[in-house]
Amino acid sequence: MNRTLLCCSVILAATPIASPGLSAQELQPIRLNPPDTTRGLPFMQALAVKASATAWSDKELAPQDLADLLWAANGLNRPEENKTTASSAMNAHDVDIYVFMQAGVFVYDYRTHQLTPAASGDFRAAILPQRPARPGAERPAAASTPEAAIQIVLVSDAARFRAGSEEQRYEWGALDAGIVSQNISLFCAATGLKTRPRAMMNKEKIKELLRLRPTQRVFLNHPVGYSR
Amino acid sequence: MNRTLLCCSVILAATPIASPGLSAQELQPIRLNPPDTTRGLPFMQALAVKASATAWSDKELAPQDLADLLWAANGLNRPEENKTTASSAMNAHDVDIYVFMQAGVFVYDYRTHQLTPAASGDFRAAILPQRPARPGAERPAAASTPEAAIQIVLVSDAARFRAGSEEQRYEWGALDAGIVSQNISLFCAATGLKTRPRAMMNKEKIKELLRLRPTQRVFLNHPVGYSR
Repeated sequence: MNRTLLCCSVILAATPIASPGLSAQELQPIRLNPPDTTRGLPFMQALAVKASATAWSDKELAPQDLADLLWAANGLNRPEENKTTASSAMNAHDVDIYVFMQAGVFVYDYRTHQLTPAASGDFRAAILPQRPARPGAERPAAASTPEAAIQIVLVSDAARFRAGSEEQRYEWGALDAGIVSQNISLFCAATGLKTRPRAMMNKEKIKELLRLRPTQRVFLNHPVGYSR
Repeated sequence: MNRTLLCCSVILAATPIASPGLSAQELQPIRLNPPDTTRGLPFMQALAVKASATAWSDKELAPQDLADLLWAANGLNRPEENKTTASSAMNAHDVDIYVFMQAGVFVYDYRTHQLTPAASGDFRAAILPQRPARPGAERPAAASTPEAAIQIVLVSDAARFRAGSEEQRYEWGALDAGIVSQNISLFCAATGLKTRPRAMMNKEKIKELLRLRPTQRVFLNHPVGYSR
């Protein structure tokens, strides 16, 4: 297995799961540490310090921080009912959390609390909004360096709602993504990490890269990292 | 002033603000207690116990609980930047929080941390989804008793975004409402109150009652109360 494809802290964070079907060049699923369900500031204190960050250090996330962040975002807190820390309309679990790291892109599986590979390679900067083209340039320039250790992208799949018009599913998807987003913002506020929710990003690039289906909509992104 | 129009705990909660222009029959604005920005379970513990309620006691909310709930939902936590506990696209403050109480309906003013009257009368049950009509009945029956001490309704005004297409403003409004909704859900989890977010309600009744403008959309409601 080519471990250099995985960023170091993730290797330390987690035991790769044996996946004999994957070639050595491919990413392996990542088992996350069990969540620490006791940490964080008292809730109202977290709200008092909540703020949107504009700068991040490039230090990688510690394994426990990554595990806790994802469980906070949409982790299984009532396994017997298949329910998570983020409500969803009709309990449809329509929101998927994509994590863009140095090694590649993973999607969070709330049922098993692990990260499943979605794409190899560092696309953290490529999904940022395109900058205006220089005069004379053939196409807009993409950012070349990531701004934070990870980029989280929230995607809702309208096909998972068992009823509802197209407009209703669109609305519920956005509401559900907002709910997950606030879990991320407040986890960061409660534990000293930095983030901000943003609607602007290169959605076409993300759809292509993740091979999203037409029913999947990209709603928000969250850079997450430590204070600079 | 006809104080019987205000529910008792709110009278105890707050000093009515002098409003000489209003007749004695009308509701008065309610100054809320300053928020207690220290209370609540540690953040991850709040997530661990977060769950959607299905039953509530009819006990009125204590003054401090009401004040803290509204500040948590969308209170001013960075006055110097005019920013609140819930991010909004373009910092547009597009989401208004309507509070349906026994005495009437109020809207939360995050700038002054007070409740401004919007309609007199108890409409907590009237805004619930209409039940199917009995065979032979002329129109669907509305619920006759409220399920919780208060009903919160989240409304986004697309006119407050300084840019964006109609579809973008719709999407941002839903995302922003989801963010406020999760603040409410987590405040309740952190402090022992009960709630759930719901997309279903009598939106036409709400629009008529609150005289909403065409740019204002009703997104979610949250009954909030104590455990039965």
